[in-house]
Amino acid sequence: MQPAKYLKYLGLPLLFGTQRTKEILHVNPTIVPLRAEAKEVKVFVFDYNAIDLVEMKPADVNGCFPFKENNHISWINIDGLRKTDVEAVCTHYGIHPLLIEDILSVSQRPKMDEVEGVMFCLLNMLYFNEEKRSVETEQISIVLGKDFVISFQEDASRDVFDPLRQRLKIANSKIRQRGADYLCYSMLDMIVDNYFNVMEKLGEQIELLEEEVIRRSDTRSLGKINQVRKELIVLKRNIAPVRDLVNSVIRSESELLEDRTTKYFKDVYDHIVQAFDLSENYRDIMMSMQDLYINNVNLRMNEVMKVMAIVTCCLAPATVIGGIFGMNFDRIPYLHHHNGFYIAVGLMLIVPIWMLYVFRKRGWF
Amino acid sequence: MQPAKYLKYLGLPLLFGTQRTKEILHVNPTIVPLRAEAKEVKVFVFDYNAIDLVEMKPADVNGCFPFKENNHISWINIDGLRKTDVEAVCTHYGIHPLLIEDILSVSQRPKMDEVEGVMFCLLNMLYFNEEKRSVETEQISIVLGKDFVISFQEDASRDVFDPLRQRLKIANSKIRQRGADYLCYSMLDMIVDNYFNVMEKLGEQIELLEEEVIRRSDTRSLGKINQVRKELIVLKRNIAPVRDLVNSVIRSESELLEDRTTKYFKDVYDHIVQAFDLSENYRDIMMSMQDLYINNVNLRMNEVMKVMAIVTCCLAPATVIGGIFGMNFDRIPYLHHHNGFYIAVGLMLIVPIWMLYVFRKRGWF
Amino acid sequence: MQPAKYLKYLGLPLLFGTQRTKEILHVNPTIVPLRAEAKEVKVFVFDYNAIDLVEMKPADVNGCFPFKENNHISWINIDGLRKTDVEAVCTHYGIHPLLIEDILSVSQRPKMDEVEGVMFCLLNMLYFNEEKRSVETEQISIVLGKDFVISFQEDASRDVFDPLRQRLKIANSKIRQRGADYLCYSMLDMIVDNYFNVMEKLGEQIELLEEEVIRRSDTRSLGKINQVRKELIVLKRNIAPVRDLVNSVIRSESELLEDRTTKYFKDVYDHIVQAFDLSENYRDIMMSMQDLYINNVNLRMNEVMKVMAIVTCCLAPATVIGGIFGMNFDRIPYLHHHNGFYIAVGLMLIVPIWMLYVFRKRGWF
Amino acid sequence: MQPAKYLKYLGLPLLFGTQRTKEILHVNPTIVPLRAEAKEVKVFVFDYNAIDLVEMKPADVNGCFPFKENNHISWINIDGLRKTDVEAVCTHYGIHPLLIEDILSVSQRPKMDEVEGVMFCLLNMLYFNEEKRSVETEQISIVLGKDFVISFQEDASRDVFDPLRQRLKIANSKIRQRGADYLCYSMLDMIVDNYFNVMEKLGEQIELLEEEVIRRSDTRSLGKINQVRKELIVLKRNIAPVRDLVNSVIRSESELLEDRTTKYFKDVYDHIVQAFDLSENYRDIMMSMQDLYINNVNLRMNEVMKVMAIVTCCLAPATVIGGIFGMNFDRIPYLHHHNGFYIAVGLMLIVPIWMLYVFRKRGWF
Amino acid sequence: MQPAKYLKYLGLPLLFGTQRTKEILHVNPTIVPLRAEAKEVKVFVFDYNAIDLVEMKPADVNGCFPFKENNHISWINIDGLRKTDVEAVCTHYGIHPLLIEDILSVSQRPKMDEVEGVMFCLLNMLYFNEEKRSVETEQISIVLGKDFVISFQEDASRDVFDPLRQRLKIANSKIRQRGADYLCYSMLDMIVDNYFNVMEKLGEQIELLEEEVIRRSDTRSLGKINQVRKELIVLKRNIAPVRDLVNSVIRSESELLEDRTTKYFKDVYDHIVQAFDLSENYRDIMMSMQDLYINNVNLRMNEVMKVMAIVTCCLAPATVIGGIFGMNFDRIPYLHHHNGFYIAVGLMLIVPIWMLYVFRKRGWF
Repeated sequence: MQPAKYLKYLGLPLLFGTQRTKEILHVNPTIVPLRAEAKEVKVFVFDYNAIDLVEMKPADVNGCFPFKENNHISWINIDGLRKTDVEAVCTHYGIHPLLIEDILSVSQRPKMDEVEGVMFCLLNMLYFNEEKRSVETEQISIVLGKDFVISFQEDASRDVFDPLRQRLKIANSKIRQRGADYLCYSMLDMIVDNYFNVMEKLGEQIELLEEEVIRRSDTRSLGKINQVRKELIVLKRNIAPVRDLVNSVIRSESELLEDRTTKYFKDVYDHIVQAFDLSENYRDIMMSMQDLYINNVNLRMNEVMKVMAIVTCCLAPATVIGGIFGMNFDRIPYLHHHNGFYIAVGLMLIVPIWMLYVFRKRGWF
Repeated sequence: MQPAKYLKYLGLPLLFGTQRTKEILHVNPTIVPLRAEAKEVKVFVFDYNAIDLVEMKPADVNGCFPFKENNHISWINIDGLRKTDVEAVCTHYGIHPLLIEDILSVSQRPKMDEVEGVMFCLLNMLYFNEEKRSVETEQISIVLGKDFVISFQEDASRDVFDPLRQRLKIANSKIRQRGADYLCYSMLDMIVDNYFNVMEKLGEQIELLEEEVIRRSDTRSLGKINQVRKELIVLKRNIAPVRDLVNSVIRSESELLEDRTTKYFKDVYDHIVQAFDLSENYRDIMMSMQDLYINNVNLRMNEVMKVMAIVTCCLAPATVIGGIFGMNFDRIPYLHHHNGFYIAVGLMLIVPIWMLYVFRKRGWF
Repeated sequence: MQPAKYLKYLGLPLLFGTQRTKEILHVNPTIVPLRAEAKEVKVFVFDYNAIDLVEMKPADVNGCFPFKENNHISWINIDGLRKTDVEAVCTHYGIHPLLIEDILSVSQRPKMDEVEGVMFCLLNMLYFNEEKRSVETEQISIVLGKDFVISFQEDASRDVFDPLRQRLKIANSKIRQRGADYLCYSMLDMIVDNYFNVMEKLGEQIELLEEEVIRRSDTRSLGKINQVRKELIVLKRNIAPVRDLVNSVIRSESELLEDRTTKYFKDVYDHIVQAFDLSENYRDIMMSMQDLYINNVNLRMNEVMKVMAIVTCCLAPATVIGGIFGMNFDRIPYLHHHNGFYIAVGLMLIVPIWMLYVFRKRGWF
Repeated sequence: MQPAKYLKYLGLPLLFGTQRTKEILHVNPTIVPLRAEAKEVKVFVFDYNAIDLVEMKPADVNGCFPFKENNHISWINIDGLRKTDVEAVCTHYGIHPLLIEDILSVSQRPKMDEVEGVMFCLLNMLYFNEEKRSVETEQISIVLGKDFVISFQEDASRDVFDPLRQRLKIANSKIRQRGADYLCYSMLDMIVDNYFNVMEKLGEQIELLEEEVIRRSDTRSLGKINQVRKELIVLKRNIAPVRDLVNSVIRSESELLEDRTTKYFKDVYDHIVQAFDLSENYRDIMMSMQDLYINNVNLRMNEVMKVMAIVTCCLAPATVIGGIFGMNFDRIPYLHHHNGFYIAVGLMLIVPIWMLYVFRKRGWF
Repeated sequence: MQPAKYLKYLGLPLLFGTQRTKEILHVNPTIVPLRAEAKEVKVFVFDYNAIDLVEMKPADVNGCFPFKENNHISWINIDGLRKTDVEAVCTHYGIHPLLIEDILSVSQRPKMDEVEGVMFCLLNMLYFNEEKRSVETEQISIVLGKDFVISFQEDASRDVFDPLRQRLKIANSKIRQRGADYLCYSMLDMIVDNYFNVMEKLGEQIELLEEEVIRRSDTRSLGKINQVRKELIVLKRNIAPVRDLVNSVIRSESELLEDRTTKYFKDVYDHIVQAFDLSENYRDIMMSMQDLYINNVNLRMNEVMKVMAIVTCCLAPATVIGGIFGMNFDRIPYLHHHNGFYIAVGLMLIVPIWMLYVFRKRGWF
């Protein structure tokens, strides 16, 4: 067999193809984290009420200890996960060890939990990797306590909450006037809204792919369709449980959530439901596209085979005529006729042309 | 490759095909509205009770401020969305900022909300664009307050509530005798009833398509089937959430709804459920049609290939016979016979005819 | 293209085929009734208790007005719908205008409603049209009030409640001893039981079709399979909502229903559930049949192509041998041999026979 | 067409094939029983408590009347259904007429009912008919009253409760110490457990079929696959409603059921759920098998066509070479050469061999 | 037919293939255990509180009787099932006979039960058999009573709870400080976590298979795809009911479970839900892979047939030209021309080359 030859049918590097399957399939949230300790950990603290705002970037996690129970809203964000750091912060803020495990876990399913006076949300930020054309995830853990929110981000190199920080800096802005629950809502809202951006980029891939399928339907197309279907699995796996997560928050009747904040969470819920519906639409579009691809491939194959069959079929009578006048009988009519040859060759031309005329009239090509 | 050639297989302009996918896929309700500010904004006000009716078309939205809390039912309709106008009206009538955001949002999922003494319904009016043969949407927001209804329509160029206005002008008509909730019901009823009109027009397309598939099943048909499937996605996306919306209204136990109005909303609910069922039937019909298309394409291809194979096969013996008597052996029987040639040619005719007879008897063509 | 030619593949008149699709798709319960006013209206009244029975056929609907509140059970049946009549009767018996609209509507989804002391059931009687082999519907509305039942039938030419009338004429029969709710149950029971008769007739069509598919699988079969699938859509659309209808009646806790009647409605419920399950089984059988059809068509096509390919292939060596000895070389062995010709022709026979032997041994035909 | 020819493709007698469909489709529980009155009716009575046991086989049903309300547990089993008998027994034991109808009905959906102090279970005993390889049903009705159980079996020729009778004969056995509800449980348990035996036998058929599909995938296989799919429909139709039945018994809170018996019914429920899951697994296996069948048929067809195409293709150059040297030009090189003929024939051999080598190298056969 | 020949298409030993189907289909939890009595039974006892720990390996089950009600937490593990042993232990610890039956049963569906003050969980440990590439199960029963946990493992040769034992040996570890419910949680957690390991190994098989399908898509691939689909059935059958099991434990409100332990069970629930979702993802991936396989097989077949058809078609004109100049007419132009032969042969070359050029330009190969 010739791997190199058939590989080109997929249009994707072999290793990448199965590599992606590997990434999708090898989910094991139960083993001790495989994730390497973060090389750097960035901590920043916003301690605010409607009027005052303290913004700090302590060198290490110890720097965020003093903000507990100071009657201000404290937002502690930790970028990059190191076991000792997470444990130090969580222990200081009285967070249950099970939640620490969850924060440190890898490829956890999005979920929401209320444990000992603290509300815990774990979900994934999605990014679209333009180069690999794949959906990437970054695990975000949000702990909402009385007067504080602690957020943990997996990857120190990118920070998703930047726009939030801008809004926080504006004194008397809505977010400054409200409690920690509103801050928590803003984070969820930002993450969910970002899902639409990722889907939009995936949608662009789907469009390009559809255009390609309509134009060419060449052998790479199914490989690409399969790749997109894998990305849709990743998408759905991350979106569907978030729906339950937000719904649980709304129905939790936790004391941590003010009544007037509920409607904001309902808004997030509406968005995540729409994102889920949209991902179903993507699926339907991909199914139609696959039907279209198979149909186009068949149409082109059929066209080729039909033309070949017609040519072969139309030349068969000419062969027979040639054979007839090539026989060595003593007496063959027209053999000695002046225009015999031209009559025979004429027949060889007329019969196929007549056949083509009949086939064409029947709409066969 | 020859795009122009294969494009004609789809029977749809290439750009339009993927353009529609783009429209369906690129849904992002979370970004700041992309929608351009309306060029013109039409406001009209109906202020009525069973006896009196004031009808006004103020030049701008300020003209509708005086109708708040005048013990009449006020219906303020705003055709065309401009951010400042929406904010002005909503602030005046005490509508929550979150709802203002929803009204101004684009491609929102239909939803119902009760916020601070106001009931809010957002759904889409559907139109069937005869030219593009596609389903278009216009976002309608309805705010039901105590003694007032405010409706916002996206597109100033068309107004869906015209028939309602005629009914309102009749003194002592039912709609004049009832409260704002009945007016709100009448609007939902009008929108939902219109869904059936859109489906009817789509249904006509499906019929024409079925007739075409039965008659010809040519290469454009699958393209058209895929197009209709996309329209069904749009339809379902708009109808399914409205079912939940109306159901939420019925179960809301809001003080804004009189008990005796509930049965009218139940009537709307029955209709929207039927519309949903019908859209499922459309889906089933399209699936059968695709099966039929594939079957017909295969049948015709098979017929062509079969005839070609039979012709080629039947001429093969003639070639062999010609070859036999064309050999240069010294002694070939019948070669010098008087009718040798005619015997050979006769054989060339008889063998294929016998073959055709056998094939025909076996029901092979 | 040759429509007439390809039409015969479907085995169904073209217009009928799409006509049926039209009937299935064009459902619009919201527009003002398209239904022509009934040419004749038949009214009959049964006014009874366990002992007495008055049977009347008044000339017009006014004749049924006196039976209101006479302490007897009154059953008023109106065959044929005329707007004025329906309104007159309903107004007299205090039935809500919304229900009048429903009674007069066309292609309504089966539903149950309780409005102002009256229970309303709308569902369809099904008939199997033997000639068109299609399922036809007749809308039946049943209004159950205190001591009266009013039933409206769409089509004056056929009356479904005849057996019921026979049972009513028997003094002291169960139906005579019970209240109006039992009469209402008997009607629903009769309608639902009739569904099984319709399914039985459709089942006979399915059987005949299966026999045909097994025997011939010719090109008409898929057309017929699609036709039956459409009838199954009609069936399901009429049966599924009736399940909800009967369930709503059971759970309604209406004062109109005596406790001891509930178990009879439960019996109807069991039947309608079974009818629904059965319609699912029909669907499964149709899917298997379509698989079988496609398989058989392919098998036959493959058989033909295989034989053609084998014949063509087996004659090719003979052509080559003929060509070899037809060459004009000076020295060709055996050319001058006494039996050269017979040896060559023998080879022409032996090689194909050997090939056939090999092919047969490999199980290729 | 040649029915006899194509029949053999199905591998099943034609009439049997559609006969089975008829049996599956023609379900009509509402008509007056089609079932012939039983020719013989076997009655037996067990009247017992922990200590005493009376076992009787009365000649007719009147013999079981004296056992009502004698403070013993009475089990009356009636094998064979005759209308008068069923009515006599049921009237004597105060069973509601609706239940009598159910007992006498044919092809009823399994169901559970509580009517007037009596619990009623109707379900089907399943048998596997080894000869026809089909699942047969026998309707069993169980009436549980205070201190008595009456069971009705459709078919007098076989009795399913034999093992139960053995257990009843053992004094002080558990079944003897418990009440009528435990007896009822034992019956349900026995029936449900038997479902596994039937599925096991059907499973053996599936295995044999799979082996056949793997080995041969000949034309009979799809017929057999379809037959098994029909049997799975019968299986599911009988198992799925029993799940609801047992669940209803558990949740009924009937006074007829002691608390301590509930856990036994839960055990039956676990089994019926497992049976249902297993029937789903069967379905999945059958789907895979159909995919496998279609794949194998295609693979073999492709192999044949490929070989034919390759042979035909490889012989074409030889024909051309023969034609070249068979032309009648005056000057053809090598024509007068000593080894011209052998060179030509050599070419005729070398070209196809080279072609075969290329094809083989490309992995084409 | 040639079994040996077609067997190789599946790439799996025939007997193994159907053997696995047999194992999957032949589930019968109701018959008296088929399982042979264990040859050896290993018993070990951990009796502990936070401070003290007694570890014992009694020779037989009687050795574990003294640990009942000694105010320590006792964990009795029995490796290998022997009827008498199970009955002895269970009777001693007051476990209901129904549970004894369940413990001894074979291929039971995972389930949870609360009977007479004892909580009972039955589920399967999964192992991946690297050699047979199949998922194997071992039935584990866990009985949680007040202050004791008794676990029964089917297979004496492997013990799954080894890591647990290590943790138990650490004085003052969490597990030592908590009650029997925490021990029970630890066991469930360990079993569920192991599911991910098994899925990971199955996932590796899927990856290898995908790589193979992309590279070669040879005839063995579908057999392997079917094998994996069977393993997924086994997986799902074992995982889906465990979800219900854990959920039942959480909702049981049993006195055996401390409130503070509930959150641990919720953690297990999160994991089992994720495992279930993942198994659905596996299914989706397998479906894509099958589509890919069929597509690749078709592409390669099409490529071969296309080349054959093109070669045959391009040689047909050469045959005709050969025939033309091989005719025996007296007057054939160029026949006596000096370069006639070369002109004819040139034509024979030019025509096919021109045809190839046209075909290539049309993108046909």
